[in-house]
Parts: sequence; C-alpha cells; structure tokens
Amino acid sequence: MNGRLITLEGGEGAGKSSVLDALRERLASRGIDVVVTREPGGTAFGEAARALMLDPAHAGLCAESELLLVFAARAQHVRERIAPALARGQWVLSDRYTDASYAYQGGGRGQPLERIAALEAWAAPVRADLTLLLDLPIEQGLARAGARGPRDRIEAEGAAFFERVRGTYRQRAAQEPQRFRSIDASQPLEAVRAAACAELDAFLDSAGVKQ
Amino acid sequence: MNGRLITLEGGEGAGKSSVLDALRERLASRGIDVVVTREPGGTAFGEAARALMLDPAHAGLCAESELLLVFAARAQHVRERIAPALARGQWVLSDRYTDASYAYQGGGRGQPLERIAALEAWAAPVRADLTLLLDLPIEQGLARAGARGPRDRIEAEGAAFFERVRGTYRQRAAQEPQRFRSIDASQPLEAVRAAACAELDAFLDSAGVKQ
Repeated sequence: MNGRLITLEGGEGAGKSSVLDALRERLASRGIDVVVTREPGGTAFGEAARALMLDPAHAGLCAESELLLVFAARAQHVRERIAPALARGQWVLSDRYTDASYAYQGGGRGQPLERIAALEAWAAPVRADLTLLLDLPIEQGLARAGARGPRDRIEAEGAAFFERVRGTYRQRAAQEPQRFRSIDASQPLEAVRAAACAELDAFLDSAGVKQ
Repeated sequence: MNGRLITLEGGEGAGKSSVLDALRERLASRGIDVVVTREPGGTAFGEAARALMLDPAHAGLCAESELLLVFAARAQHVRERIAPALARGQWVLSDRYTDASYAYQGGGRGQPLERIAALEAWAAPVRADLTLLLDLPIEQGLARAGARGPRDRIEAEGAAFFERVRGTYRQRAAQEPQRFRSIDASQPLEAVRAAACAELDAFLDSAGVKQ
C-alpha cells in the first residue's frame, strides 16, 4: 500500500522544527516507516537550489525566478525522493511543500495563484494527504525568529510580506478544510506540539493505522 | 529608440563562440552599442544556475527541473540585463535564448512544447528580433566539440538527443522564417562567420541602420 504525504507549513518562528520532531516521533511510535524531508531541498540538487535562493547576494532576484527555482527544486524532490518513498509504502513528512509557494511566492511576492497552480500540476503532481498549518501573529513569529541570528534573503523581508504569507496560508486552509489542520502556534511550544500530535493521531485513526 | 535583441543558436561544435565574436565586431563597426551575453547565464544568479545545471554531479536531474531552472535563470536575465539594455537603446547579442529551451528541454528532453511556450509567455516576454541558427550535421558538431575536453551534463548526452535538438531547431526556423536565418555551419569557420555577418548586414539594412 502506498504511504501518505504529511506536510508542515507555517511562517517564521512558528515552531516548525520542534513540531516536526514531535510528529516524527509520534509516527515512529505508531510503527510507521517515515522519511523526513524539507523544502526547498530534500535532494542534493534541491539543497543547492535552496542555497542559491536564500543567498542574500541575490537580493535582486525577481519573483518569477524565485518561483521557478523553488519549483525546479520541488520537481526533483517529488521524483527522486517523495514519490519513490510513497510507492515503497513509506510515509513522508515534509517541512513545507507546495502550499509554501502559494503563500511565499504567491501571497508574498505577488505571483498569480493560477500560475502557481499550473506549475504544480505538471512539476509537483503528488498531493499532500494532511497539512498541518502552524498559525500565529506575525509580530510574535518575527520576534521568535529574530533571535536566531543572521537573516537569509526571505527572512529579510518586512512585516507586510509576512502578513500576506500568513493571509494566503489561512485562505488555503479555509478552502481545503479536509486536508488542512490549522494549529494555534501562539501557544507555548509544548501545547503546539501536543495539538499537532493530536491532529496526527486523528489522521492516523481515520487512515486505519493501528494504535 | 529601443534596441534590438539578436540571438545565436546552434548545437555543439557549431562554431557559436567564433561567430559571436564576428557579430559583435560587425555591430561595433556599424556604430551600434551592443551588450553581449549568454544563456544559461548573463547575471550572477544565472551563472550560478548554469553551473548547477551543467554539473555532472546532478546527472539524475529530471527534465522538469532542468526546464524550470533554465527559465529561472532566463527570467532574471530578461529583467536584470536584456530588457534594461534594450530600453536604454543598446542592442543585445545573446549566445542562446528561448529557442534553446524548445530545442534542448523540448526536443532533447521531451518536455511538451506548449509547456515551454507557457513559461516563455510570462517568464521571458522579450522576443528576439533576429535569430541566427548555426546548423550542421550532428556527427560533425560532436567531432568538433569532442576535442574540447571534459563534458558537462548536457554534452554527455548521446547522438539521438542531439538529433532531436537539431530537428527542433530546424522546425522552429521553418515556422518563423521572418525571424530565423539558418546558416550552414558545416562550411569552414571563416565561411560560417562571413555568412552570419552577411545576414546581420541584411538585418541592419532592413532596420535602417546607416552603413
């Protein structure tokens, strides 16, 4: 049986890394063979593309190039890593996936959403089965992320950019309530992790995975 | 007045570099301020993307990623370099441009031509005014290119790949006879350069550039 693709989305400082660890542990504890990966990245080519994309030296990178580069990394990720794992019956847990392009390159950079949907259709035809969105107010996220040190090319954007990113994520979550689970990430991190694991448990139960 | 975009296309070993020099000299001798550039590349981002694309370490790069990466480089090239130069009244001479994607990623890799046209429409909306195609039989081109040393990821392809590339170039030239000038690149290099310059002169005359 094919595995499932679970994606984790959210803005800066939402606690994604910590929640990712919690989800990985929970999947493992329920006997699921899980591959953990991330976007942009997930393959040697994708990580090189990620480095190129985040490099502050390319501050003048146009929105079109950023969108195309992210999808170049994603197309390889899907074909080299995600689809083969799912076909082997493994589950895949990805730190960001296609929704991030709608949020960052669409909402954030203003690339038309239909353009992104057209790329998704042929470049990344594998759909997430469950998407957990860690949602929190921009100021709170930026305050947390700001403590981390030097900013990359995306982190260097202003609050208005991140408001558009958040708005697009929330809009997508509202449009696809079946796939999305939105989690209040303004709570203390332990509560965010617990809420994410509870959503995962509900998904596992509905997917017929034994306790 | 806006400048013009002249592109030079052709397969491996067609003599592009030498012809490019000849065209640059001819343009300069006719008093035209010309910017010479190349694809993939032409900008700092584009050159980094080019290195990534040609790196033999990414031998398993899928056709979709290659296409997206080439257009990521091109979108930046158009916005950062080509369009501003044309707007300033400079002419641009580019060693390869969009036709190369139809030939290599389309004909060579099998990506649908409509997919390439859709990307071109929004990522690279500047059209070439004149395209010189250096056409020669594959065996002859590969024999010339083979003398150059280690092969990059594209050069490592087989003869069937390059036959499809050549076929697509010829097909495009036939479809757009107004823009394309096909030059027999199996001639001695001096004759190829002379033929290219003669085509350029005819274009300059038709464009009203003074002798």
